[in-house]
Amino acid sequence: MKNQVVLDNRRDVPEATIRRLPVYRHYLKQLESEGVVCVSCTQIANWLSFSPIQVRKDIEFTGVEGKPKIGYELKDLIAHIENFLCFHTKNEAVLIGAGHLGYALLGYHGFKEFGLEIVAAFDNSQDKIDKFINFKKVFSIDKLEEMVSRMKIQIGILTVPASCAQALTDRMVAAGIKAIWNFAPVKINVPKDVVVQHENLASSLAVLSKKIDEQIKRDLK
Amino acid sequence: MKNQVVLDNRRDVPEATIRRLPVYRHYLKQLESEGVVCVSCTQIANWLSFSPIQVRKDIEFTGVEGKPKIGYELKDLIAHIENFLCFHTKNEAVLIGAGHLGYALLGYHGFKEFGLEIVAAFDNSQDKIDKFINFKKVFSIDKLEEMVSRMKIQIGILTVPASCAQALTDRMVAAGIKAIWNFAPVKINVPKDVVVQHENLASSLAVLSKKIDEQIKRDLK
Repeated sequence: MKNQVVLDNRRDVPEATIRRLPVYRHYLKQLESEGVVCVSCTQIANWLSFSPIQVRKDIEFTGVEGKPKIGYELKDLIAHIENFLCFHTKNEAVLIGAGHLGYALLGYHGFKEFGLEIVAAFDNSQDKIDKFINFKKVFSIDKLEEMVSRMKIQIGILTVPASCAQALTDRMVAAGIKAIWNFAPVKINVPKDVVVQHENLASSLAVLSKKIDEQIKRDLK
Repeated sequence: MKNQVVLDNRRDVPEATIRRLPVYRHYLKQLESEGVVCVSCTQIANWLSFSPIQVRKDIEFTGVEGKPKIGYELKDLIAHIENFLCFHTKNEAVLIGAGHLGYALLGYHGFKEFGLEIVAAFDNSQDKIDKFINFKKVFSIDKLEEMVSRMKIQIGILTVPASCAQALTDRMVAAGIKAIWNFAPVKINVPKDVVVQHENLASSLAVLSKKIDEQIKRDLK
């Protein structure tokens, strides 16, 4: 499992760092709206219950420079995090599978902030084709290849059952998709030049179940 | 950030291990349906593109015993993974916020397999109250405390906007909820005896964006 994102000429950035940076940013934006001007690692750490050392390490990857005893200028820190996370790169994506989860993602407004825009959805159900979900049109899956290559879309969001995930992955890749956000509960195989980010609700649920189990054992002591 | 789940009298289990075990199980169930009887770590590793050492380490946590040169009996391995992940503990949950994401989760059939059953949903919108989504009734949020304590529900799934996440968390905790699966894009504060599993789509999207960015840089070389 790949847990590190390799950056040219720089230290490897742990995936955990990349996952935490949006959480810091969310908190910093909140402080910004309250009129705060400067912030320290300790403040961020206390608020989020992380360790200050961890926060400092994570923030250092963005290249921002702090001032001794003061910390970081809030605006500067937010800008560095957003730049590091490529917030301002516009990325168009298509969504494959307009079921419940696809529906939820089409209605989620938080993606645009990250530069991601879902421009179209595809499905094979006649009930869904040519309908609009949150102003995005659902097209027949038959039109996938033609539209992806014509619109030069590079990102595919896969929200289909496990049974058809690989076949649709192959079709996306053949049409020119270079990155897949996979919500299907199955591993998909792609060529080396295609990036996959796997979203696994089952795994998160497993972690939750395990935590609950341990909590119950502690309570019984 | 807590990355380890502490098990009494045993080694700490890395959260990454717990996240990978459902993936192994998914693959093993597939093999089982094909009539396979034995499986080795190398086979699992090759299929999933993990390292065999990693797979062996993960599987060891479940306490299963393999046979030299043969590997594991498939049924035995699946049973150990499911037992380790507490698949057979029945957990009832309520869902707070029947928006798009809540809707998707109410319609998701994969949870039952993990022993999780969403027994009711709550919302504050008159359009949704008393409607059924996937045979689950949506109740007025005013009934949250009464129903949670009467039905002795211990798990809350939080699919509400960031702005009201903390207030609803406080209400859930006061009503007796002991574990929260938080899909709201914000940190929630809970007492020490309450478990939180945070699901952050923004963080996953950040990882994807970063991977794409690096891929593009590589291609330009």
